[in-house]
Amino acid sequence: MDFQSVIAARRDNQKQTREQLELVAKSAADGTVPDYQLTAWLMAAYLNPLDPEETAWLTSAMADSGERVDLTGIAKPWVDKHSTGGVGDKTSIVLLPVLAACGLTVVKMSGRGLGITGGTVDKLGSIPGFRLDLTPDELKAQAGRIGIALTGQTPNLAPADKTLYALRDATATVSSIPLIVSSILSKKLAGGAETVVLDVKCGSGGFMPTLGQATELASALSETAKRCGLNIRIAISDMNQPLGRAVGNALEVKEAMETLQGAPSRFATLCVELAALTLEASGLQPNREAGRLAATNALGSGAAAQKAKEWFAAQGATQDVFAHPEVLPLAPVIREVEFDGTDCWVSEIKANVVGHAVVALGGGRQRKDSVIDLSVGVEMHVEVGSRVGAGTRLFTVHAATESAADLAISNIRNSISFDSKPTEFVFPILHTL
Amino acid sequence: MDFQSVIAARRDNQKQTREQLELVAKSAADGTVPDYQLTAWLMAAYLNPLDPEETAWLTSAMADSGERVDLTGIAKPWVDKHSTGGVGDKTSIVLLPVLAACGLTVVKMSGRGLGITGGTVDKLGSIPGFRLDLTPDELKAQAGRIGIALTGQTPNLAPADKTLYALRDATATVSSIPLIVSSILSKKLAGGAETVVLDVKCGSGGFMPTLGQATELASALSETAKRCGLNIRIAISDMNQPLGRAVGNALEVKEAMETLQGAPSRFATLCVELAALTLEASGLQPNREAGRLAATNALGSGAAAQKAKEWFAAQGATQDVFAHPEVLPLAPVIREVEFDGTDCWVSEIKANVVGHAVVALGGGRQRKDSVIDLSVGVEMHVEVGSRVGAGTRLFTVHAATESAADLAISNIRNSISFDSKPTEFVFPILHTL
Repeated sequence: MDFQSVIAARRDNQKQTREQLELVAKSAADGTVPDYQLTAWLMAAYLNPLDPEETAWLTSAMADSGERVDLTGIAKPWVDKHSTGGVGDKTSIVLLPVLAACGLTVVKMSGRGLGITGGTVDKLGSIPGFRLDLTPDELKAQAGRIGIALTGQTPNLAPADKTLYALRDATATVSSIPLIVSSILSKKLAGGAETVVLDVKCGSGGFMPTLGQATELASALSETAKRCGLNIRIAISDMNQPLGRAVGNALEVKEAMETLQGAPSRFATLCVELAALTLEASGLQPNREAGRLAATNALGSGAAAQKAKEWFAAQGATQDVFAHPEVLPLAPVIREVEFDGTDCWVSEIKANVVGHAVVALGGGRQRKDSVIDLSVGVEMHVEVGSRVGAGTRLFTVHAATESAADLAISNIRNSISFDSKPTEFVFPILHTL
Repeated sequence: MDFQSVIAARRDNQKQTREQLELVAKSAADGTVPDYQLTAWLMAAYLNPLDPEETAWLTSAMADSGERVDLTGIAKPWVDKHSTGGVGDKTSIVLLPVLAACGLTVVKMSGRGLGITGGTVDKLGSIPGFRLDLTPDELKAQAGRIGIALTGQTPNLAPADKTLYALRDATATVSSIPLIVSSILSKKLAGGAETVVLDVKCGSGGFMPTLGQATELASALSETAKRCGLNIRIAISDMNQPLGRAVGNALEVKEAMETLQGAPSRFATLCVELAALTLEASGLQPNREAGRLAATNALGSGAAAQKAKEWFAAQGATQDVFAHPEVLPLAPVIREVEFDGTDCWVSEIKANVVGHAVVALGGGRQRKDSVIDLSVGVEMHVEVGSRVGAGTRLFTVHAATESAADLAISNIRNSISFDSKPTEFVFPILHTL
């Protein structure tokens, strides 16, 4: 088959055959088709989007373009979790131990952060000694032993996605729903899980700014996953304000540990809801309410925190970071900002503005090869709906220098809006499917 | 300016700025933007076509991407001629001497053939000694001296087109009218002519199969040329049947020489019409009819043939090919085919089928790097409208081997259709603008 005919079919919005889409995935993985032909196809696919059947064919072909993790032998049920990424999204660090404490096996591959979207790999990298380069054998052995294993992305898993994503990133073809779907789900398929829970972030700090767009992506993910034989549940969650208190790698690990030890918060509520969805989806709990109860118990009883300690130790953490949080990197400049107006309510905190402020502090990557400072970031002491008055603590900036702190303070102050009328608390989950 | 924003604007069908299109041309010429970004832009431009203003901006920028031939000092008026390419299209070899004999200066860069489309450079290359690598200085000096100079394409002329054309050819983005227009006209602009005559071929043997498509291309060429300050005239000419008697490089040179010496034919009529259009456009003749008369006189008086002899000699021909046509390469196998049915009329000769038969004989390139046999080809002894009876000569095949001749005979026989009712002669020019 000639790749030009594959491009021409997409260009003319003709239905592509399974074989044509397999050729796209195979060529992207093995380099037999030049990048300039792949990007012509990608732009044609952006402008003439793949239909559901084509999306499923491409997804399966991308999953088959490299190794597939084989979890045969692991005590069932086993699950995977994925987020489309947001500002302050440390959910995996809490959710995985909760699920394992509730009796599931969780095997997960995580990525590094880019732009305002943080990456679990970076956050866990702030724990001294934590290994993120487990081999497939180590991954499987650890999952079998303690019920949790997490590693960075391996080049052999869905290598077609690696090539296609890099090319999309360079050619303004990222935001195509069928291409996003095939990128996310091909890695989940190759990762070997039976049940997958996806957290689609919706709002200024995520990939999909509006509920309409997020719902469109969620529906496409759901349909494609079903066509590919994956048991999937999807939550659409609010990403208009930062998720939780902390934004910044080590600061988020601290917040995750507090949540694991039972501290209640809007972020903890999200973790419980996602856990409930997963426990129901896996069949381990009969319904959402029973799942919610199991997850709440895991957090309240200390079982989740205990599971996290086992997990960190199993992956090489040199000290118990729960007992010694001071081993996490700490920024030299810490500045707290208070409210100086009259009594009112917080009506908005722009997640994207906060995210960019943290990137500017050095806590996120401007480019893929940027080096990041794990110690910096911001802690928000208010959320949408908080009542504030003169002297209320608004946020604390952790910075490398005084001038970096000045800039961050100015930017984050601008991200917060106030209103003289009360603003309602926003439940973290907007919709599930 | 970031090239991604240029791609995104095209993708979203936003009006592009002149600066953005200058960046496309400049980057294509100097290699500062990777091919995979250029092809994403090309596919977006295919699916969201450039508007007339954008097409003119891109055309000018491509013309400015390399050297521009400076014809200052040449006795005016000077003209250039271009054909979109067809089967048996040896028009330039006749037209240039006719125009020069009528008092114009013609400077032309020509390409090599590809697929069923022949190239003037290949045809003239069958004349022993003929040089096709004139430097810009030689080109200008010869044009000043004898009124004609022709050379192969120089890499420094519109180098952006060279890159973009190769990428379009590899990514199914060739047949976009604004991209075709910018490719043709950027080279004409860089070539330095004031007046340009374009021959847009319409039919199975050309680029535009239908009159509607050919007219669309011609209108876009006309509008863009005007916006770029070129004095342009366009003829849409019939390319459903082969142009003239001969298809094949040396055979076409022979037919061109016979036409230059006054032999009348449908092909000669096309040459006279194009000459008339050019003479009128340049202002050298007051109207089309006066131009027609001047061109007919040049052919009938021997002035055009004399000018061609001067031209061939000036470009290095080792012998006078008019006096010694036997120096042209001759194929070893020559087979004549006669009609063996009852009296009827030729209703169709499929130019594309004849063209592919000549490519299969080795007379055209399958790929850009194919080596071609200049001696092979076919001579058609009938045209659409010809009356035939038992024993009428239909065509003669010139081949390297008997088996190649057998295949060509079978294919070319299938290209000809007959009808028991008379079919009208098709005037070679369909429309001018």
